[in-house]
Amino acid sequence: MNHKNYFMNKEDKYSKLLVDSGLFFYGHSKGSFILPSHGYALWKNIQNSLDKKFAKHGIKNVLLPTLIPFELLEKEKQHIAGFSPECFYVEKIGEKKLENSLVLRPTSEVLFYDWYRQILQSYQQLPFLYNQWCSVFRAEKNTNPFFRNTEFLWQEGHTLHSNEKEARELTLSILTDYQDYAENILGLGIIVGRKSEGEKFAGALESYTVECLLPDGQCLQLATSHYFGDNFCRLMNVKFQNKDNQIQYPFSTSWGTSTRAIGAVVKTHADNWGLVLPFDIAPIQIAFIVIGQSEELINYYQEIYSMLSPIYRCQLYNKNSRFNLNILQADKEGCPFKIILGKEEMEKYQITLVRRDHIERKITIDLEINEWERKLIPAYEKYMESLSELLDDKTKEQMVNFQGESIQHFKKNLKQGKLCGIIGKENEKFQKKLSQKSIEFRDNHMFPENNLTELKNKIKNGVKGLFLIPFCNDLNCEKKMKDQVISYSIRYLPILEKKNKKIKKCLFCQSDTEIVAYLGRSY
Amino acid sequence: MNHKNYFMNKEDKYSKLLVDSGLFFYGHSKGSFILPSHGYALWKNIQNSLDKKFAKHGIKNVLLPTLIPFELLEKEKQHIAGFSPECFYVEKIGEKKLENSLVLRPTSEVLFYDWYRQILQSYQQLPFLYNQWCSVFRAEKNTNPFFRNTEFLWQEGHTLHSNEKEARELTLSILTDYQDYAENILGLGIIVGRKSEGEKFAGALESYTVECLLPDGQCLQLATSHYFGDNFCRLMNVKFQNKDNQIQYPFSTSWGTSTRAIGAVVKTHADNWGLVLPFDIAPIQIAFIVIGQSEELINYYQEIYSMLSPIYRCQLYNKNSRFNLNILQADKEGCPFKIILGKEEMEKYQITLVRRDHIERKITIDLEINEWERKLIPAYEKYMESLSELLDDKTKEQMVNFQGESIQHFKKNLKQGKLCGIIGKENEKFQKKLSQKSIEFRDNHMFPENNLTELKNKIKNGVKGLFLIPFCNDLNCEKKMKDQVISYSIRYLPILEKKNKKIKKCLFCQSDTEIVAYLGRSY
Repeated sequence: MNHKNYFMNKEDKYSKLLVDSGLFFYGHSKGSFILPSHGYALWKNIQNSLDKKFAKHGIKNVLLPTLIPFELLEKEKQHIAGFSPECFYVEKIGEKKLENSLVLRPTSEVLFYDWYRQILQSYQQLPFLYNQWCSVFRAEKNTNPFFRNTEFLWQEGHTLHSNEKEARELTLSILTDYQDYAENILGLGIIVGRKSEGEKFAGALESYTVECLLPDGQCLQLATSHYFGDNFCRLMNVKFQNKDNQIQYPFSTSWGTSTRAIGAVVKTHADNWGLVLPFDIAPIQIAFIVIGQSEELINYYQEIYSMLSPIYRCQLYNKNSRFNLNILQADKEGCPFKIILGKEEMEKYQITLVRRDHIERKITIDLEINEWERKLIPAYEKYMESLSELLDDKTKEQMVNFQGESIQHFKKNLKQGKLCGIIGKENEKFQKKLSQKSIEFRDNHMFPENNLTELKNKIKNGVKGLFLIPFCNDLNCEKKMKDQVISYSIRYLPILEKKNKKIKKCLFCQSDTEIVAYLGRSY
Repeated sequence: MNHKNYFMNKEDKYSKLLVDSGLFFYGHSKGSFILPSHGYALWKNIQNSLDKKFAKHGIKNVLLPTLIPFELLEKEKQHIAGFSPECFYVEKIGEKKLENSLVLRPTSEVLFYDWYRQILQSYQQLPFLYNQWCSVFRAEKNTNPFFRNTEFLWQEGHTLHSNEKEARELTLSILTDYQDYAENILGLGIIVGRKSEGEKFAGALESYTVECLLPDGQCLQLATSHYFGDNFCRLMNVKFQNKDNQIQYPFSTSWGTSTRAIGAVVKTHADNWGLVLPFDIAPIQIAFIVIGQSEELINYYQEIYSMLSPIYRCQLYNKNSRFNLNILQADKEGCPFKIILGKEEMEKYQITLVRRDHIERKITIDLEINEWERKLIPAYEKYMESLSELLDDKTKEQMVNFQGESIQHFKKNLKQGKLCGIIGKENEKFQKKLSQKSIEFRDNHMFPENNLTELKNKIKNGVKGLFLIPFCNDLNCEKKMKDQVISYSIRYLPILEKKNKKIKKCLFCQSDTEIVAYLGRSY
């Protein structure tokens, strides 16, 4: 069977798979979407993964309103200029025209800073480390499920610090969190970089980005982290009294990632059978398939299920009367593992485990405890015996069952530990294989190019991917680039300059430069 | 000290306490609010409590868009009629006027049914059991933090069933969930009832309600659950093929509760010192107060903290340099328990526990393990020894530390179990006391009244609470009631008719009736 990525040049099938696998449904208003239960659970798991990372920095979640008074948004002209053609305006409530119109948040900078301005007084309150999970609204002409929607979900963190160093460090710590999330949780081959002058977020001194090259050769911005210096605080008049009793502006950061991540995961990992979801974020991590309906078999299934369901997200797939249709459904929905239980498995006290990345391979796991494990049981029984000797007769009587149950529980724990150990190891291999495939694709689609004519030829001839070009990072040259290489943009520059780099000539102004820019088409 | 409720006739202090304790902040646009981290965490805990209850029925969360095309909303004329003066309309995107205006969801019935219509085909897919947590938008003239806001947070469940019985049962099961949530989690003295003809939700055959009498004598609708028959499905053209291959309309329910619950909890439980939050939903369940700064004491604190923080939401309160200011802060924020650790506690290997409902009372807990516990240790040591004998020499060497650590861990577990046992018991008493106070208040503010003139006199004389009146539950009489008893409404009727009820005369038409209606002022 061909495990070539499903979406290589099969753009149209993407949306169908999203709907069929229950991740996505079209909303009634243009470009909006419904998250059905499967898609919602996936997004919740992504949230939990990131919240854990954010919490390590002391970041807490808050929630601000959806509506922004237009006059407040206007304070940040530079910012609104970028968003205003995409904004949704509320100018009427019931039949009543509003004097001051309201805007549905395209992003919440002004709301955060307006709040911070009112509550911040002293350096002792800093840092402010707040994040919000919410929906944002941007009218998009060409919509594309999860990649470009008029209403989508994201998180936006906005922090304030009393000094530059701390703010810069947080910007980069969060970038590292995003990198780890994209590589190790989503299993994506990514590149981490900083944005060029022309691509930086309005008002930011530095913008960093995590980008992923998708199978169609286009580049997706997965997450960004910005350092603002005190620019935003000056603009929004957010001040505090520092240790020396002087009034100053705090230093700030912002950072975010969105439901685009779901699109990236689907496009990168899906195969001919449907979704392939990374283990940590999969709504169902283990799909149970039971072949047969005997009472004995159902009991056997329940025994296994009760061992695994406290640890993993498990679900029995039994909606179809034929078991292979249930298998197809679990595969389409991207469950990382299937556990198949039939008469044979039951009789041999085994289970059959199948990994989603290799669905022909059946892994047989023996549940019979081994010789060494068998030795542990008498030791435990003796221990229980010694505990019971400590009790008085009356308590002992009450505890008779307890002792028996404890030994049962101990045996179950042995099996459970063993089973989880094997699943854990298989998951490491599974996750590694997902990542490797994506990393290889990325590495095979990066093309160093020092000649503008050659670059244009390659693009004309259909070469897709990232072009590494010498570039001076001047705004004028970035404009020239956009005029000459239509539909392409500078996706990122390396974060750290390597030592002993070769000096080359910028492709657009021929000045000397050490910078290599990554040129690509973006989503 | 007087533990009389803080908000009895002190309405103005309510908002100040909300802001000071970090539950609430005013949004920039009228009637909107910010949930700061403390308020957000409280709401998340409420969500988790309810999600667990909903999950038992197989209900899953989904998320639908914020914007509803006006033409879709218009399909449900009866429904929109109730909401249209309160609706926020989007009629412009950027500079472009929209042909079809959009409405910010005041509630999501039409979006759910529009989705269901597209995905439902066969009885095999039913029931549809979906819920969403989201914000809703209703322009309100007189806003009141958490009780009446233009944008607030809620959950709305919308289910479809193939038969009436199942739908009716779910409506009542959810009502029972809400009752348990309000009584046992929020600690509120509530009344559960059904709505009168005039107060039923538009389109509902039955509306049930959980209401709470707040300290100002006004009644708050905390949660509702509605049974629609097939009314909504007919209107929205949602159909399915039943077992007999015939096309029919499903039976549906909806149910919801909102951030109003936070307002009810605050007003009901707060005292002179600030918030008093129920244990299950408190953002911080145990506040640690450390008196002193010696290294020894910090280590002692860390020992206790490490036992409790895996089980409870714990936080060290140390922002103020004076410990009693930290105590005041923890009390203002409503932490159910404080653990106070000073030199004396450390030297005696004790902790001091203080319950928020009785802040003068200090509960001393001895951490020294008792005689019986001491006997358990040699038994466990012997067990560890017997395990180590099973190992070969090399493994044994690697495990030397493991054995020692296990015994340490065992001792720690003994102390942890003991400590949690005591905290659990104190929490039962704490929660019971919160509930009792609220239940007593409710019971002391219910007044049977069989005479209309008397009723009017009592209200005129400032009697506040619920008036139990004979009422025929006819729409005309409900209208008469509203004309004659200004600002009052029928809050609910009993769900089940008691047997052998006395027949009385309806206060407004003098016809015979067995129904007792609960008349009150509502939020």
